[in-house]
Amino acid sequence: MRIGILGSGQLGFMMILESRNLGYEFATFDIQPGPSRAISDAYFGPGSEKDFVDSCDIVTFEFEHVSETALMLANQEEKLVPGIRSVDLKRDRLREKTFLREGEFPIADFEPAYSAEEALRKSRRFGRSILKMTTGGYDGKGQFRVDWGKSSSYEVPDASYVVEELVDFDHEASLILARDSSGKKVSFEPAINVNHRGILLTSSTPAKDHGMGQIAGKLADRLDYRGVLAVEFFVKDGVPIVNEFAPRVHNSGHHTLHGSSVSQFEQHIRAIAGLPLIKPKLFQPSGIVNIIGREMNDHLRRKILSVEGTRLYWYGKEPRRARKLGHVNIIADTGEELEKKIGAVKDIIYGKNIDDYF
Amino acid sequence: MRIGILGSGQLGFMMILESRNLGYEFATFDIQPGPSRAISDAYFGPGSEKDFVDSCDIVTFEFEHVSETALMLANQEEKLVPGIRSVDLKRDRLREKTFLREGEFPIADFEPAYSAEEALRKSRRFGRSILKMTTGGYDGKGQFRVDWGKSSSYEVPDASYVVEELVDFDHEASLILARDSSGKKVSFEPAINVNHRGILLTSSTPAKDHGMGQIAGKLADRLDYRGVLAVEFFVKDGVPIVNEFAPRVHNSGHHTLHGSSVSQFEQHIRAIAGLPLIKPKLFQPSGIVNIIGREMNDHLRRKILSVEGTRLYWYGKEPRRARKLGHVNIIADTGEELEKKIGAVKDIIYGKNIDDYF
Repeated sequence: MRIGILGSGQLGFMMILESRNLGYEFATFDIQPGPSRAISDAYFGPGSEKDFVDSCDIVTFEFEHVSETALMLANQEEKLVPGIRSVDLKRDRLREKTFLREGEFPIADFEPAYSAEEALRKSRRFGRSILKMTTGGYDGKGQFRVDWGKSSSYEVPDASYVVEELVDFDHEASLILARDSSGKKVSFEPAINVNHRGILLTSSTPAKDHGMGQIAGKLADRLDYRGVLAVEFFVKDGVPIVNEFAPRVHNSGHHTLHGSSVSQFEQHIRAIAGLPLIKPKLFQPSGIVNIIGREMNDHLRRKILSVEGTRLYWYGKEPRRARKLGHVNIIADTGEELEKKIGAVKDIIYGKNIDDYF
Repeated sequence: MRIGILGSGQLGFMMILESRNLGYEFATFDIQPGPSRAISDAYFGPGSEKDFVDSCDIVTFEFEHVSETALMLANQEEKLVPGIRSVDLKRDRLREKTFLREGEFPIADFEPAYSAEEALRKSRRFGRSILKMTTGGYDGKGQFRVDWGKSSSYEVPDASYVVEELVDFDHEASLILARDSSGKKVSFEPAINVNHRGILLTSSTPAKDHGMGQIAGKLADRLDYRGVLAVEFFVKDGVPIVNEFAPRVHNSGHHTLHGSSVSQFEQHIRAIAGLPLIKPKLFQPSGIVNIIGREMNDHLRRKILSVEGTRLYWYGKEPRRARKLGHVNIIADTGEELEKKIGAVKDIIYGKNIDDYF
């Protein structure tokens, strides 16, 4: 069997690394070659969308916005897993939010707006709100915070927005699950996520579930989902609300690469290839620190790995400010020790000037 | 940094899969392309030994008998890790045994013999003995059992032999350790190994140490070893004697791919690249079943993976009788459960006719 992956970034890279053991071939399609090209059996670029899809038995994606043409073709040929429905919802934030509201999932209140003026006007209702462009946003881009108690005038680019009530939360969290074609679901432990300037900086697990597992399970069922699904939450006083979902492996699930009975990557390939899912078992408290905008060198590599229980994933991408270039996996005997180690690794990577890299 | 690997078989395949995360490039040399070619950054064939070595910063091997020329060149350019000494001892069983005897390691009594006639004559001293060709044997090939109590006449090919007293043992075991350039050593848990027709069939861990860790450590120090070293033992009444060692990652260490804080493969790359070693931590009883001479198909893959806690490594080689084609990793909550699962997986793979495959 040959599995096609749309996108050749780090998620595809780890997907292939973590499931080549299963004996499948992997083909990759991307606009320009990324980390996974070197370990793919075949690589396809723009113009060869049809060849790519035709050469594969199933097609999945590491990122839902790589090639509309390839997605459509894979869908037409009935090879796309997870299906087009979850992708379609992710094409437009308004569609996603409306779907969540109609499904009675707990979400932040929101209003649609089709211009900057309308967005700002509607945001007054919430006082503090966040204006999210309906398309194109990623890692905090295309999002603007507005607090009418602090300023009486804001300027945002003219676009369509989801105007969302700003949620006060204690922490962000995520839950990753896998669902197979029979509807069987298995969940990884929830993770607590810390962002810096809108980009995931650290993530750690286990964390209290607060019902997130059930919400994510219901979402996967509603989507008749197949594969790994990530659901992001805000948690306030032990009550989670859904921020958004990602129909794919997710940065906040990288902790599953170390100290876990199966990684999200192998689990995804198992789910889409029709293989039995493995019951995720967390052997030890586990977390990650993302390496953002920071070049790697031998000295840094050694320093990071000198913290006991760390493993390094370096994606081999061109360094650029605010770009995810790698991550560090960390395991520890206790949650407290894990947090200490996460702090130590963060200091090793960023020192005192983290903003220089973001 | 670019790491060269001599040999493109499954050991090299897993070495690359398990350490690409570290951010190194990998080049492979082999007589003919094997499983690791598809995930190597560069592949070199016969005639390009010098180009291969020149293109790498360090050179290691997945098998010590791939190319004498490449080994020599890598040694000359001071790139070979582990060093030539351990390879040299493995070129000739007599040299290896003599080294072990001189180092006062516990071994089976033996005699050198330079012809079939001399070997058979000398074997009479032991009654039950095993005649091992000094060169070329692997996976039980080139070895002949002789029991003068059972027969008064044997025929073996004319060759040089190590004539070894046949050791009565309760079980075979192995211990895998890593040693870095500073002399720091970390050991994996010992494994108990079960062979079938001279080929490793199953392996499971943890097992009682019986002093094997100390013996292996002393051996690594004697060799001023750098990298992962595997030492095979016979254990009788809790007393281990050294059977042989392998200056590389080893089939009996594949259990480290699942349920362990680090695999032998990443550990080896860390050791040779000068990175800090990770403390091996066994999260759960863990073992493997080798897939020998048995073709893979979707049905078999699913059946194997339906045993909870199994992961499959399929090497993608041409199936051939008695050939190692893959293995299954198994974890369990208890040693007893592990043995049951190993039995179940063995049955799924071989049914009642295991000898058909060996």
